Amino acid sequence: MSHYPPSILKLIKNIAKLPGIGEKTAERLALHILRSPRTEVQKLSDSIMAAKENMRLCKTCFGLSDQDVCQICSNPARDDALLCVVEQPADMVAMEKSGAFNGRYHILSGVLSPMNGIGPDDIRLGELVAKIERGRIKEVVLATSTTVEGEATAAYIKERLEKYALKVTRIASGVPVGGDLKYVDQVTLKKAMEKRHDI
Amino acid sequence: MSHYPPSILKLIKNIAKLPGIGEKTAERLALHILRSPRTEVQKLSDSIMAAKENMRLCKTCFGLSDQDVCQICSNPARDDALLCVVEQPADMVAMEKSGAFNGRYHILSGVLSPMNGIGPDDIRLGELVAKIERGRIKEVVLATSTTVEGEATAAYIKERLEKYALKVTRIASGVPVGGDLKYVDQVTLKKAMEKRHDI
Repeated sequence: MSHYPPSILKLIKNIAKLPGIGEKTAERLALHILRSPRTEVQKLSDSIMAAKENMRLCKTCFGLSDQDVCQICSNPARDDALLCVVEQPADMVAMEKSGAFNGRYHILSGVLSPMNGIGPDDIRLGELVAKIERGRIKEVVLATSTTVEGEATAAYIKERLEKYALKVTRIASGVPVGGDLKYVDQVTLKKAMEKRHDI
Repeated sequence: MSHYPPSILKLIKNIAKLPGIGEKTAERLALHILRSPRTEVQKLSDSIMAAKENMRLCKTCFGLSDQDVCQICSNPARDDALLCVVEQPADMVAMEKSGAFNGRYHILSGVLSPMNGIGPDDIRLGELVAKIERGRIKEVVLATSTTVEGEATAAYIKERLEKYALKVTRIASGVPVGGDLKYVDQVTLKKAMEKRHDI
């Protein structure tokens, strides 16, 4: 690596800090950047800082936003009675991409994880309860991951919301669409069998 | 993708322009950047521009450098009588990493490729001949790739240098070290057999 001039070396090292980017890939990307037109390089460099500078959390759903209130929370066409609870901003984006949901979101910014010392006060549960107490929400869809921690978090929220007059639902788990049964793991198959339904 | 705020979207699009980085990876990298401390992000952004701004070609070997003459060309400890000819700056770095060469380099910045309209005047052949005419070089090692174009370029240079009193050599090709014979391609094996030598 020390065979590159210092400024290139620095660039390679900084790129290699990104997740999933090894030294070889970083080297390849750095050489590509050096070969690119100056305007392109400037755009990349600027957009990195701009995204970081402009990024804040939406005051309502706690998703990524570059305004105080994000595009979804400020959209009057969305259903105020439906609230989808997810772990992270990227989960919200994944759900949005599916186009299956037209309500509002609430991002927990984490999951309950006693092993890592993350309790109910460390994720945005208080804010969720406060939202529900305002009384406009009729259904809460728990869309945390189907991991052990995600399931535990969903179960905890379900229990905590029992005293409110609302429907609490959980996204379905089962065989992924397009999934070949022989490649689906046993736990998923078991779940799919348990949750079988009339057609 | 349009589910992200504009500044994040712009960052994702700029990252996705890098070679080998798809939209999914770009998304992952962008979210990582947003989660990173501001100083780290600043370092990355700055190093991109700094590398691009400082980068120039070494006046002597035409490799990447941030000075007029690169570290290798300005190193008095290296052998002036030995010149290694490579295609690209990255090839020089690969050779340097091997630690097998202590001479000087000459970077062609390409290979002869009649199919793509690249002839002898489009790569740094004139500069190579000029270097040789200065008379200090005793051996030229042709280390272009072992592709069809790399071989053709090596053959062309060999011919062109015939009138000078110097040794022209080619890097050896054969089975890579640590290579399992059954996974080595047929052309390489044929070459390795043809070039067999006493032990």
